[in-house]
Amino acid sequence: MNLELMRELSVKTESKIVLLVLDGLGGLPLEPGGETELEAASTPNLDELAKRSDLGLSRPVAAGVTPGSGPGHLGLFGYDPVRYVVGRGVLSALGVGMELTGNDLAARINFASKDSSGKISDRRAGRIPSEEGIRLVDLLNAKLDVEDAEVTVRHEKEYRAVVVFRGEGLSGHLSDTDPQRTGLEALPVEPEDSSNVAQRKSAHLANEFVKQANEILADEEAANTVLLRGFGMHPALPSFEETYRLDAAAIAAYPMYKGLARLAGMELKKEGEGIAGEFATLKESFADHDFFFIHIKPTDAAGEDGDFERKVSVIEEVDSLLPEVLGLEPDVLAVTGDHGTPSKMRAHSWHGVPFLLASSYTLPTAERFGERACAGGTLGVFPAEEIMGYLMGNAMKLNKFGA
Amino acid sequence: MNLELMRELSVKTESKIVLLVLDGLGGLPLEPGGETELEAASTPNLDELAKRSDLGLSRPVAAGVTPGSGPGHLGLFGYDPVRYVVGRGVLSALGVGMELTGNDLAARINFASKDSSGKISDRRAGRIPSEEGIRLVDLLNAKLDVEDAEVTVRHEKEYRAVVVFRGEGLSGHLSDTDPQRTGLEALPVEPEDSSNVAQRKSAHLANEFVKQANEILADEEAANTVLLRGFGMHPALPSFEETYRLDAAAIAAYPMYKGLARLAGMELKKEGEGIAGEFATLKESFADHDFFFIHIKPTDAAGEDGDFERKVSVIEEVDSLLPEVLGLEPDVLAVTGDHGTPSKMRAHSWHGVPFLLASSYTLPTAERFGERACAGGTLGVFPAEEIMGYLMGNAMKLNKFGA
Repeated sequence: MNLELMRELSVKTESKIVLLVLDGLGGLPLEPGGETELEAASTPNLDELAKRSDLGLSRPVAAGVTPGSGPGHLGLFGYDPVRYVVGRGVLSALGVGMELTGNDLAARINFASKDSSGKISDRRAGRIPSEEGIRLVDLLNAKLDVEDAEVTVRHEKEYRAVVVFRGEGLSGHLSDTDPQRTGLEALPVEPEDSSNVAQRKSAHLANEFVKQANEILADEEAANTVLLRGFGMHPALPSFEETYRLDAAAIAAYPMYKGLARLAGMELKKEGEGIAGEFATLKESFADHDFFFIHIKPTDAAGEDGDFERKVSVIEEVDSLLPEVLGLEPDVLAVTGDHGTPSKMRAHSWHGVPFLLASSYTLPTAERFGERACAGGTLGVFPAEEIMGYLMGNAMKLNKFGA
Repeated sequence: MNLELMRELSVKTESKIVLLVLDGLGGLPLEPGGETELEAASTPNLDELAKRSDLGLSRPVAAGVTPGSGPGHLGLFGYDPVRYVVGRGVLSALGVGMELTGNDLAARINFASKDSSGKISDRRAGRIPSEEGIRLVDLLNAKLDVEDAEVTVRHEKEYRAVVVFRGEGLSGHLSDTDPQRTGLEALPVEPEDSSNVAQRKSAHLANEFVKQANEILADEEAANTVLLRGFGMHPALPSFEETYRLDAAAIAAYPMYKGLARLAGMELKKEGEGIAGEFATLKESFADHDFFFIHIKPTDAAGEDGDFERKVSVIEEVDSLLPEVLGLEPDVLAVTGDHGTPSKMRAHSWHGVPFLLASSYTLPTAERFGERACAGGTLGVFPAEEIMGYLMGNAMKLNKFGA
């Protein structure tokens, strides 16, 4: 998306946009001639919506390229995911509510177990419960003393935490310490380019952190070491407020998606329990914002598990709850995914993602919502980055370009 | 295609990709309401394949822009054909197996006839046979003595040859000497920009070459002069090996397509006789490479001749031989063209080219292979440059982008 153009044309209006993202929505038939998860699902409400919607296939990142969740969502928000690369550590830090600045280097922590010879025996420290993880994070914050940087550790979930190094001249171009399997020693943090001063300094800080953490955790039973991965600096993304003049809210249950929304300057809402809880939050906060990003995770999780039927069920659950969203009568409602996660592949994929946009200004082409119905839609196959443009246009939030 | 991104994400795997290019495949109906050549052809094997393939229309270069064979193929290989301009001389030189470096300036030679007044009387020297062409090339190589450059002439076919100037500071921005019709004198080689030193030097070298060739050939009966065209420097294309980590092979009968494949770093295979011969070569070399570009010329030739029925027949011949390719069970098989050559136009065209991709991860939309079936496919209408991304993705040769 041309963000400059968006900033030039966007205007503040009363209209409301809802972007409902079913993570990994896109699918494939299990057998040639079969239906995708979305096609197989019984979705009377989505089908009714499709009859008054523009349809298309939204393509993430680039032809044949499978996006991680970060690039997938950046595209949905209108940012070029190849230009704006966000480390997973940054997403985790934002997701747990840390305020980051441009000087901050973040990485994800796994609490892990190592044996007496120094080899990693469990990369997740026996999946220690969250209470235990919180205690260990407090211990680290109390005892850590790294020169040249302010170091903050924050608990994420169970054995997972995040560390932020705040200092001058840091870089996220660093290698992970996670050896990826047990029986191996943790790796040292290495700069990608050993002649780069910022990378060398950052690697040194990270290795010093690991050394101190090992000392502090030495007497712990399970979690006696840490593994670091996903180093990254906080990227300076133009915010939703400045780009689209939107007062945006995010409703998401998982830290990474909260982090992505925060990166765009969205306000995080307390999400409630499950899909119904997320929709209830939407209802409660509907008066307070003009843009709502709602993230639904279980579609992706079912796809990753290779569970076609469960993915169908999640889609059907969303469909059955959809009247809650429709009842709010948003001016623009879009339903899509950040990428495909076909059950057949048990993984993210590069395929075009079904996209539906309901507004007062649409040109419908099909009787139902599905990949193949979308392939014939009036939006065609288009870059996911363009979605924000269509949302803004249909919400009558863009001035005419030129006389 | 973003070649940097491809290089970053591509991984070496065992999977095999076959890109089958029917030159000038795209067509048009002769009359409104009629069928295209591909639609009119009886293609049971391609239709069966379409039922398990992703379909789309691949658009070469830019909207409304008709590509030559060079840009058409560069696009298929993922290179931006507007950025990477390749002179026809370079393609001919590579096609006849010459090893070029970045200092090499190449041009095509036509042996031609001129009358006693110096006017061109036959631009092809009575289409002298190849034995005669070879003799003349040997004569030139034995006697030429151009200062400031190493000059090599190589025979191509019949009255056609290629000349390569190797020297410092050369440029391909030069005009042709071919006056395009008989009864006119050959033109001098001129620099496009007369203030450019490299262009001036190169024009001087080329004109010196023509002068000496005229002296050497003065006593020949038919081929007593040369015409030069298609000047160009060897462009430094990132190779298939470094970009996609592919060990690529090319099976093509014509020098220009061999040249294009060499430019991308593909290994040329002995092509055998006709389409059956090319497919036999594929079979023989199938174990030795992970990417195969197969070029089939007669579709384009029939289109250029305005012979609708012959183009249909060639397509049907390819279809009847397709089981030879299918029997090898490539992980990814794509069938497309480098551009359209509608019989109705007797020329290349700008139209979207039918594209079919069979793999284990497709979402089929049609019962047959044809332009209009492809227009409704899940790949939509897309830049030909993106084909390599889809081939790589479907072959599971690209890592996920981002976390």
